[in-house]
Amino acid sequence: MSEQGVMVVISGFSGSGKGTLMKALLERYPNYALSVSCTTRAPRPGEVNGRDYYFVSEEEFCRMIRDGELVEYACYCGRYYGTPRAYVEQRMAEGKDVLLEIEIQGALQIKEKFPETVLIFVMPPSAAELKNRLCGRGTETEDVINARLHRAVEEAQDMDRYDYLLVNDDLESCVSLLHQVIQSQHFKAASQKERIDTIRQELKSFT
Amino acid sequence: MSEQGVMVVISGFSGSGKGTLMKALLERYPNYALSVSCTTRAPRPGEVNGRDYYFVSEEEFCRMIRDGELVEYACYCGRYYGTPRAYVEQRMAEGKDVLLEIEIQGALQIKEKFPETVLIFVMPPSAAELKNRLCGRGTETEDVINARLHRAVEEAQDMDRYDYLLVNDDLESCVSLLHQVIQSQHFKAASQKERIDTIRQELKSFT
Repeated sequence: MSEQGVMVVISGFSGSGKGTLMKALLERYPNYALSVSCTTRAPRPGEVNGRDYYFVSEEEFCRMIRDGELVEYACYCGRYYGTPRAYVEQRMAEGKDVLLEIEIQGALQIKEKFPETVLIFVMPPSAAELKNRLCGRGTETEDVINARLHRAVEEAQDMDRYDYLLVNDDLESCVSLLHQVIQSQHFKAASQKERIDTIRQELKSFT
Repeated sequence: MSEQGVMVVISGFSGSGKGTLMKALLERYPNYALSVSCTTRAPRPGEVNGRDYYFVSEEEFCRMIRDGELVEYACYCGRYYGTPRAYVEQRMAEGKDVLLEIEIQGALQIKEKFPETVLIFVMPPSAAELKNRLCGRGTETEDVINARLHRAVEEAQDMDRYDYLLVNDDLESCVSLLHQVIQSQHFKAASQKERIDTIRQELKSFT
């Protein structure tokens, strides 16, 4: 297997449970690290700088883009969101699999720059179940729920551009499956170039 | 996950233990089926028609090529070897993952026709270990061992064209890993088109 960590993008509809899944993955297995994004939006109550996001000025964000310090970035509702390169590369070099919770726009940017990245889309068992989960939270207005469903329709257009599609029906089995899918990536031939070179050299020395 | 089975090509140097691995996979898990190749070479002592190979005439083999009855075929030392399409497609439709033990030439033909096929290369931990295993059998002359090592040098040139590369150090852990890698394929987005279409339709009906 490759000794370098894998970059893993996890996306999914609001209500797919992707946040809970990632939390479970981090708690249960020692080999993951969570990437923290930077953003130009203001912190919400309770959000901690460096834990939820790195909150930066627009000027600083533009400098980071210019200096190539972001592996991807995107703009939503006039605010910028991006993934700092240094943290991701450092943890991967240490052998950690780095989890990025980002949306399709950023996911495709990363896949282009780093083709070994694995893109995983998490979905609920059905649209009816998604609606139930969104309504069941009981904290959102009907307008917010409808906006999320509209957003899900848009996101569904790009689902087939992901590498893997996992149904989050039962949390326990979905966490195991997510772990299994990610760990399989370490055995891709493309990420074992050194091993291939070594055995080629060794074999030649015998003949 | 996809309900259709996955086509799995397993290749590896002589001495990599791929035969033992495939046997263990078939014994241990119920969801695999082994593809039996057809060949124009004569049966060796102990080989059974329909179990080891389907032994066919050159005329029959040419007819099968012409009628599109083979998913791949190749010629080694003047003898033809091929994989009958009907069996593979039937077992995949039943949901079985079909294992094909073939070499690179056929593997790449299949990958081109069926891009969802997973190509797995099995290797020993090192070239020294490969030589030990080949010598340790005690049944082969030095000439045969050298011919196999030369063949391994050639095969190593194409290792990087496979999807996955597994080191067969410990049989038990390699069987589990092989199973895990194959089962992950069922969750590829590309093999879940129906599921994607369904949720797209359902989501639209809510908005």
